[in-house]
Amino acid sequence: MVKYGSMSKGADTKDLILRTALDFASRCGLEALSIGELAKKVGMSKSGLFGHFNSKEKLQMMVLDYAANDFVQAVLLPAYKEPRGIPRIEATVANWYRWIEKQHSGGCPFVAAAFEYDDRPGQVQDHLRLHLSTMINSFATSANIAVEEGHFRKGIDSKEFAYRFYSYLLGLHLYSKLLKDNKAFDYHKHSFEDLLANYKA
Amino acid sequence: MVKYGSMSKGADTKDLILRTALDFASRCGLEALSIGELAKKVGMSKSGLFGHFNSKEKLQMMVLDYAANDFVQAVLLPAYKEPRGIPRIEATVANWYRWIEKQHSGGCPFVAAAFEYDDRPGQVQDHLRLHLSTMINSFATSANIAVEEGHFRKGIDSKEFAYRFYSYLLGLHLYSKLLKDNKAFDYHKHSFEDLLANYKA
Repeated sequence: MVKYGSMSKGADTKDLILRTALDFASRCGLEALSIGELAKKVGMSKSGLFGHFNSKEKLQMMVLDYAANDFVQAVLLPAYKEPRGIPRIEATVANWYRWIEKQHSGGCPFVAAAFEYDDRPGQVQDHLRLHLSTMINSFATSANIAVEEGHFRKGIDSKEFAYRFYSYLLGLHLYSKLLKDNKAFDYHKHSFEDLLANYKA
Repeated sequence: MVKYGSMSKGADTKDLILRTALDFASRCGLEALSIGELAKKVGMSKSGLFGHFNSKEKLQMMVLDYAANDFVQAVLLPAYKEPRGIPRIEATVANWYRWIEKQHSGGCPFVAAAFEYDDRPGQVQDHLRLHLSTMINSFATSANIAVEEGHFRKGIDSKEFAYRFYSYLLGLHLYSKLLKDNKAFDYHKHSFEDLLANYKA
């Protein structure tokens, strides 16, 4: 959750709108977002709310930005404070666990949107692809740093590491949210440990 | 694709309706399915179409059944003709590759629905969970058979194998469909090979 210390009333309103929209999108999907419904939820007129975003696509993209900021603040930035290499990758996973459990009303908005928009070409899909690629690239960078630190073997394909790392998190999401499998986190933990072992120097 | 040799007109009509509904749901999601729109697409009256399904939930569940049947025919049944153990698991993956590539209009309907319904409790979610659990259990059974055949080590957790196996396929889906990463299948292939190596006797 982003903390805004002293904000203007306009920024407060925008924050309330985006937080409400994200909560809705996490449960019902980004495409189902309606400016009319959202206006009702936050107690504004439709035209007043429209003035903040101009179009549904712009609103959807700003909801993605808002969710990405949440994720970066909760998962990635705290991990960057850990020592470079494996400790930082492990911290990313630990923060992710807390973050998934916190998403009680709906799962990860990015995962949901990824499978919602994979066949809807347009600017929302492009924006989503940009966010996901940025996140996935950050995992590849973490793997490269682990090589520099001598934690991972030289010559690994860091982008392939990122694929494996993210696949297991997708699996965790599906097992914990939809299947409600109480071994979901155990499965992930063991798989992630084996993944690290497979890349270790 | 299911082939019905000699079918009654009623079964033909139902097949056309479900095929059309599945195509729509694969692109726009199962929740966006509307009996009115579907009736227009197949050239029937809304009440005529309603007569086949009685409720939107029933239609959504039958679309899932239809998709599951497609998947079983295209991926699982042909794999069961291969020798027990690793050859059968490898055949499942080879068939899955062909099946993903065939899903040109939208990705896998189950993956999309899984993330669409993870926060929509009800009979459609229960039905989806049942289908996914059945599929995932079949992967665990394949791992148990691989142990019996002496291909996998004794004492492995076959359900955890299924989690890893399915996670990599979820990742493949996201990388190939949304990210349009042309290395998606390479990444999956290497990851799957390492997964097998990790379980081999």
